Amino acid sequence: MRYRVLFLLVVIMAILSCQHNNELTGPSPNVIIIFMDDLGYADVGCYGHPTIETPNIDRLAREGQQWTSFYTASSVCSPSRGALLTGRYPIRIGLAGDHQRVFFPNSIGGLPTEEITIAEILKEQGYSTGIIGKWHLGHLLRYLPTEQGFDYYYGIPYSNDMDGVKWSLETLLTDTPDINMWNVPLMENEEIIERPADQFTITKRYTKKAMEFITKHREDPFFLYMPHSMVHTPLFASEEFQETSRRGQFGDVMAEVDWSVGQIMNTLEELDIDDNTLIVFTSDNGPWLLMREDGGSAGLLKDGKGTTWEGGMRVPGVFHMPGTVQPGIIHDMGSTLDLMPTIASLTGAQLPDDRILDGFDLMPVLTERQDSPRNHFFYYRKTEIYAARLNEYKAHFITETAYTLEKTRDDLESPLLFQIEEDPGEHFDRSSRYPDIVSEIGDLVEQHQKTVVIKDAEMDRY
Amino acid sequence: MRYRVLFLLVVIMAILSCQHNNELTGPSPNVIIIFMDDLGYADVGCYGHPTIETPNIDRLAREGQQWTSFYTASSVCSPSRGALLTGRYPIRIGLAGDHQRVFFPNSIGGLPTEEITIAEILKEQGYSTGIIGKWHLGHLLRYLPTEQGFDYYYGIPYSNDMDGVKWSLETLLTDTPDINMWNVPLMENEEIIERPADQFTITKRYTKKAMEFITKHREDPFFLYMPHSMVHTPLFASEEFQETSRRGQFGDVMAEVDWSVGQIMNTLEELDIDDNTLIVFTSDNGPWLLMREDGGSAGLLKDGKGTTWEGGMRVPGVFHMPGTVQPGIIHDMGSTLDLMPTIASLTGAQLPDDRILDGFDLMPVLTERQDSPRNHFFYYRKTEIYAARLNEYKAHFITETAYTLEKTRDDLESPLLFQIEEDPGEHFDRSSRYPDIVSEIGDLVEQHQKTVVIKDAEMDRY
Repeated sequence: MRYRVLFLLVVIMAILSCQHNNELTGPSPNVIIIFMDDLGYADVGCYGHPTIETPNIDRLAREGQQWTSFYTASSVCSPSRGALLTGRYPIRIGLAGDHQRVFFPNSIGGLPTEEITIAEILKEQGYSTGIIGKWHLGHLLRYLPTEQGFDYYYGIPYSNDMDGVKWSLETLLTDTPDINMWNVPLMENEEIIERPADQFTITKRYTKKAMEFITKHREDPFFLYMPHSMVHTPLFASEEFQETSRRGQFGDVMAEVDWSVGQIMNTLEELDIDDNTLIVFTSDNGPWLLMREDGGSAGLLKDGKGTTWEGGMRVPGVFHMPGTVQPGIIHDMGSTLDLMPTIASLTGAQLPDDRILDGFDLMPVLTERQDSPRNHFFYYRKTEIYAARLNEYKAHFITETAYTLEKTRDDLESPLLFQIEEDPGEHFDRSSRYPDIVSEIGDLVEQHQKTVVIKDAEMDRY
Repeated sequence: MRYRVLFLLVVIMAILSCQHNNELTGPSPNVIIIFMDDLGYADVGCYGHPTIETPNIDRLAREGQQWTSFYTASSVCSPSRGALLTGRYPIRIGLAGDHQRVFFPNSIGGLPTEEITIAEILKEQGYSTGIIGKWHLGHLLRYLPTEQGFDYYYGIPYSNDMDGVKWSLETLLTDTPDINMWNVPLMENEEIIERPADQFTITKRYTKKAMEFITKHREDPFFLYMPHSMVHTPLFASEEFQETSRRGQFGDVMAEVDWSVGQIMNTLEELDIDDNTLIVFTSDNGPWLLMREDGGSAGLLKDGKGTTWEGGMRVPGVFHMPGTVQPGIIHDMGSTLDLMPTIASLTGAQLPDDRILDGFDLMPVLTERQDSPRNHFFYYRKTEIYAARLNEYKAHFITETAYTLEKTRDDLESPLLFQIEEDPGEHFDRSSRYPDIVSEIGDLVEQHQKTVVIKDAEMDRY
């Protein structure tokens, strides 16, 4: 009899211990997305910048996965953010129109509320959800983050150069930045709490709020979306980071952002939830080259923000979750579009089944370094596909510079084709060598376009 | 009495143990310089290339120091090699002339034998010295490595595209390389042992010879200079590396070079001399952009091989010696010119005191991460200083494209000035903002030029 009790006890203990070790039945994992603004592919130490120092982001990459072919779904702000949050190309969610590419202070549209965000599917799972940073998906009450699945919002509603007293390159690129030149509001939930926002301390305050949010919800599962206002010009850093870096104001701002990443990592470690928290670090689009030394760099990739060249849409992409994300450098393709399905897979959240999603579940790459399920990507500009990638080939159908001050659009009679892994700088056209691949990519685009129902553009409402 | 004996014994043991632990009196450290050919700043994983995989070089950098502002003394082959081996600008050693920039098969000159090489000062210290790879400092008997301090030579005497049956871009860039198109000899000491050299297996054979050399001299101190023939076009890789990489032939070749670095590291570890061996990894000049997809990349740096833009002369620079080199990323300036004084400092070898050296001892940076003693650098092209850097500023006095097929030389009436740490891509001229710095750099150049006695150029003898 005594042995039977002992046996039972052992069995029970074994079951309990299994449950404890089993991811699926353990505490639900937390998710943090750190989303930079206008950070180029080469603006991080571990992505090759010679003078920008980012020891914390480098550590994130070293302990996690550093992706070298990670794409944002748009080369400008608002559509990129909508796509990340919904897992759908901007054209499907009313964020691609014929005129404006992003929301401006006079816009009356926003991300349609019938779209389902990562915050919404996680909220269904009992997550606490917060956004700390820049929203830029509609600033009227009905479009604010609290209408899109977020319990808590702290940040600015649109870009930090909007509502400018005087928008000019001189004002933007000054060595003596002045917050009064930008009438940007700082909001908490639905309230404006400061205007103009003190942009000097904004990264520091985002960080403090993020640490508070994490600490407050350390026992719940939480989703924290942290879209920094920086490194979008005008550049602002806290006093202790000013004139500290080799890379000028841009480097100072990156030093503060990197410090912020370190604070988040430390907080998770102190609360002993770092092993149970997925951190994603990426950017909304490539570097804003127009901003000269205050803009970033795409390294050997061509061009930057606003274009469908690689420099416009390939961005740093880092995943970190000790014990779950298997460290390494990943050369396969991934996209911000993939975050929703990946996070659903990680957390057990339900994806919407009444609409087309454009993302893939990257969990097999993250946990086992399997091949990426993503083998193609469409480079949209407004409502059109300018370029498309299939495996290692990218075809361009239309080319255009970032901002069409003069007519630079070129509807190519014969598409360009680049072997993007051998020639990541897009220098050597191979279309005549591989006409079949050009056709194959053309067919892929056509197939995809059949699935697209264009909605009226929210950005064209003002 | 007994206690006195015990006391004495303790003292003796303490002294012996001190001696054993004292670097200066311990076994003399070995030195290995791995010198790439035409490898650009961004052609290594940890320097930011998105598709070139170099796990072994990355490990070397992670365990050691990765320098981001490391300069080769010339943007082309022969002068760069001479400067590395002597610690002197090419103009001081007869390697800067008005016509040819490098040695060709019809050259009758070479590095003057009165110049003193790293091999020579280490030989004085009782080192075994070997060069395995490409020499390119004169191929007549009196100029071979064995006349310049090397006990052993295995490799090719000049570039792997010389002695071409037919030198053309087509022959160089073919997908089906043929060793018979290049009549390059493979030499062992003073003998030609193979002609044309089987370039497919050359990296593999260099590696095997290097491992043999290291193993043979594991008890001596040794100096191994390993100037790879690759990644100079025409590109050749061993069969097991062909078509294995994402970066095409260039990536295949880099995979084999990286494998080679790993083999060297493993050999040192197996012989338990890794802690006592300084490994330096760098390149002779920037990427040969003329070679299209078979050439490398300088990332966000401007231009490449042959020019005095950053892309021509700033190269990867990695130092590795566990326990001695303190790991980290170093943004201060260093140069291949500094290797001779640094190695002298490490090994106790005597520097020549009858001539001007242009290098600095980098040991304080390597061992303690002190500020670099180098605060300036002169960008020579042939006999002229085209540009000069002082701290974070670089002034250009003359600009010119890599190869002057048409007249592109521009003797600037007013120098350009770049803040090279904030603007490493050399885009934004600041000369009008900082005229004093332009003058200061001009004065520095003038001072330097007073120390230079131009010798007849060895490359112009043929």
